[in-house]
Amino acid sequence: MSPSIFNDKFQHHLSREARARGKGPFQMLDRIKCNTDIDLISFSGGIPHPSKFALRRLSVRFPELGCFHEGAGNSYPKEADVSYDLGRDENENGLDFEGALQYGQCQGIPELVNFIKEHVKLAHSPPYKEWEIKLTNGNTIGLEYCLRLLINYGDPVLIEKYTYPAAITAMSPLGVNFISIDMDGEGMLPESLQEIMENWDPSKGSRPRILYTIPTGQNPTGSTLSIDRRKKIMVLAQKYDIIIIEDEPYYFLQMDSYNGSTLEEGNQKQDSMQNSTVLSSFVKKLVPSFLKLDVEGRVLRIDSFSKLIAPGSRLGWITGNQLFIDRITRAAEVSTESPSGISQVTLFAILNHWKQEGFFLWLQELQRTYTIRRNALLESANKHLPKSICSYKAPKAGLFLWVEINKDRYLFDSKNKSVSDIELEIFEALLQKGVKPICGQLFMAYPDKNDQIFFRFAYSIAPVDKFEMGLQRFASTLKDYFKFDEKELQAIS
Amino acid sequence: MSPSIFNDKFQHHLSREARARGKGPFQMLDRIKCNTDIDLISFSGGIPHPSKFALRRLSVRFPELGCFHEGAGNSYPKEADVSYDLGRDENENGLDFEGALQYGQCQGIPELVNFIKEHVKLAHSPPYKEWEIKLTNGNTIGLEYCLRLLINYGDPVLIEKYTYPAAITAMSPLGVNFISIDMDGEGMLPESLQEIMENWDPSKGSRPRILYTIPTGQNPTGSTLSIDRRKKIMVLAQKYDIIIIEDEPYYFLQMDSYNGSTLEEGNQKQDSMQNSTVLSSFVKKLVPSFLKLDVEGRVLRIDSFSKLIAPGSRLGWITGNQLFIDRITRAAEVSTESPSGISQVTLFAILNHWKQEGFFLWLQELQRTYTIRRNALLESANKHLPKSICSYKAPKAGLFLWVEINKDRYLFDSKNKSVSDIELEIFEALLQKGVKPICGQLFMAYPDKNDQIFFRFAYSIAPVDKFEMGLQRFASTLKDYFKFDEKELQAIS
Repeated sequence: MSPSIFNDKFQHHLSREARARGKGPFQMLDRIKCNTDIDLISFSGGIPHPSKFALRRLSVRFPELGCFHEGAGNSYPKEADVSYDLGRDENENGLDFEGALQYGQCQGIPELVNFIKEHVKLAHSPPYKEWEIKLTNGNTIGLEYCLRLLINYGDPVLIEKYTYPAAITAMSPLGVNFISIDMDGEGMLPESLQEIMENWDPSKGSRPRILYTIPTGQNPTGSTLSIDRRKKIMVLAQKYDIIIIEDEPYYFLQMDSYNGSTLEEGNQKQDSMQNSTVLSSFVKKLVPSFLKLDVEGRVLRIDSFSKLIAPGSRLGWITGNQLFIDRITRAAEVSTESPSGISQVTLFAILNHWKQEGFFLWLQELQRTYTIRRNALLESANKHLPKSICSYKAPKAGLFLWVEINKDRYLFDSKNKSVSDIELEIFEALLQKGVKPICGQLFMAYPDKNDQIFFRFAYSIAPVDKFEMGLQRFASTLKDYFKFDEKELQAIS
Repeated sequence: MSPSIFNDKFQHHLSREARARGKGPFQMLDRIKCNTDIDLISFSGGIPHPSKFALRRLSVRFPELGCFHEGAGNSYPKEADVSYDLGRDENENGLDFEGALQYGQCQGIPELVNFIKEHVKLAHSPPYKEWEIKLTNGNTIGLEYCLRLLINYGDPVLIEKYTYPAAITAMSPLGVNFISIDMDGEGMLPESLQEIMENWDPSKGSRPRILYTIPTGQNPTGSTLSIDRRKKIMVLAQKYDIIIIEDEPYYFLQMDSYNGSTLEEGNQKQDSMQNSTVLSSFVKKLVPSFLKLDVEGRVLRIDSFSKLIAPGSRLGWITGNQLFIDRITRAAEVSTESPSGISQVTLFAILNHWKQEGFFLWLQELQRTYTIRRNALLESANKHLPKSICSYKAPKAGLFLWVEINKDRYLFDSKNKSVSDIELEIFEALLQKGVKPICGQLFMAYPDKNDQIFFRFAYSIAPVDKFEMGLQRFASTLKDYFKFDEKELQAIS
């Protein structure tokens, strides 16, 4: 496939703004060749002199490979240090530290870009050749770049019925017409997507051509699309010429199914696995990404180090076809340029020390950490939440448990109240009892169309030893609010 | 002045997009009060656990206060180290390192924000009370935020005739109609601005209400607006309700007038000045910013650490009225969020060690560094450039010498060539001779309207010992191209 095929195939998806994005004017000079017989004296770069970079050395400490289980006080048994110095010719592993601190690295520092490309290859094996990546300042602007690349004012965008609030907040000012796809405990329903596309009323504007989805450990529902659904959705995307934006901050936080036990001690030993085993076993256990199923280049995948290294790194990347990545890069040239070089060097120090296999081992350790937390929350939920009124599925990825309140089975004086009003009333009561999940309506584009009551519980940060009391308070609030009858109370206790 | 006055006064300047920017949905929950008698168990934050932040310690080395002159090999006589550790309660100077690496700091980490606000107060003393700052990922996105805040598709924007190319590249896809203001060696001509505003033809659309300017050490012209011009422009801005975007990456690189000597040895001792002297003498010598003249809140000032600490920090800030900064912050919440926490901590480590006065001393050292370079380039220029064909003014700030080629005095076979064509031809010839400035036309919104030949020489990064040879090659190329007569040749040699 020649790169130019993307122009023919996807040019019509570019927004007015993205179409108008030229290359920077300085690139016009690049076609004028220098005389190679003479040493060029260049006065072209309006850039500061590196002797006046105030940062002279950056040192980074992080858990040593094979020592990824933290001990008491969250300290690691062995840590590694990597330093980079300015003005020293040989920096560790040949990273160009001066270059990383200077202008002119809009793509990102080459060493880090190469590491990530290799990682993408290992994790997703994109099935077409001409994919590219662009480093971003995290997933939030990653999405913003994708939106500005594709959306014109008033365009419809397909979203999951419940989705990431910042995505809605980002799209609303761009005039997006949100088209909700129905979901169940396993994510978006391909049938709902098909129904929307098939029966689209052209009098309401052009058919949607952008799908925004969080396929894995979805925020807020915690659902993970099965491979079967992913394939069906990909077929629909091809049929209806839909660009899929897959926003995957939780992709690597996939877990074994919940089997009722609190801890998964078996995983404790995985640090010592052979590298080849890591690569094959770790990646094979991951549900395939849309990127992995994308033979054409119609997926824009957004990844982030926020959940993997630290949110404060403000570093992520977008993977997609060359046309899209080129236009996103042009947009970045006049906005963020590159992510912080200091951040890039810090992450490169860690990743380069661990190498690809070590990074996967770290991801495996993250899976273990959040699996323990998920299991603890599920154990408390199973113990305390009344089955007849609360329903939830054990998440297979991510940070969230999504609890539906089956309001319909209960009588209450709600004649004049909307579902969202009731949800907020319960939320207020929950705060009075000292427990705070997040209301489902906050994850909707049009909360006034809400017809279900949900609460999202994040199990990533709260103290594990408070989980049980938290869910007890939740159950007790519901009991009061819905005025359970005696039989129900027995079932709960 | 009450903050709400900005709504009344400037609301109409907001773009369609900025008007539609709501607060994030989570903030809606903030109005619901918790029960303060009970310890809240919160499951609300979908954020990773800090025990799994892979970055455990960050150490930063930088020139020690009072040791700001680099020696051989660009090393500093004494350097300071500051470290921050995760999981330790007391980090140096109370910085919340864990907080800096976590989500939720869209404004920037409070310690750095406070430092910068204090700096703004010392440097500019904004004459109205309710100004705010928003940290940015550098000036380029700082400008992008301002543009998206104010501009609707097709709006006219006032720019200097020659300006920062990335500003043009940023504005073009937004459909901007560029209105050029004439300049001379001292920057924008207030009379030109007045003429444009006074004689605006309403049939060509609404009158411009946004002025983009680089007032100090302007890119590419190196010009610096005098206080007198600044005041006149501010009066026009008030009269015609113009919002001024002042983009000031070179503001602190102001210099004493060029007096013909190569070095300014007198400055060498300034490190040891008393702090109170620094504050009063350094700031008093600066030409006042538009921000300093702005009693209303109609200036958006964009600052950056790129030229002050290092471009790779990707850190800067916008100063403006509360309405504008609030809308920019809302935009940032769904794009960059905060700048990299790692970058912020690194800069805070340095700035907090130096304190406000020390930072001004560092800026003074930068002035000294670039003054030496400017002087060296001017010395070579005075020696080698033919006066009758080359004209330039000694810059009083920034990194650029802007040389005009007085084409009109010379005959050449240019009947069918545009000025831009001739400029490019000369550029090609320069590359053949081994010297590379940048063509003036690259700094124009509409290069086909070019009527002057200019070349921009950056003196910030090229080796000083190559300056003379570089300008010799430039002069010799011109000599060949314009076929000087004998008299002229004598004048040159």
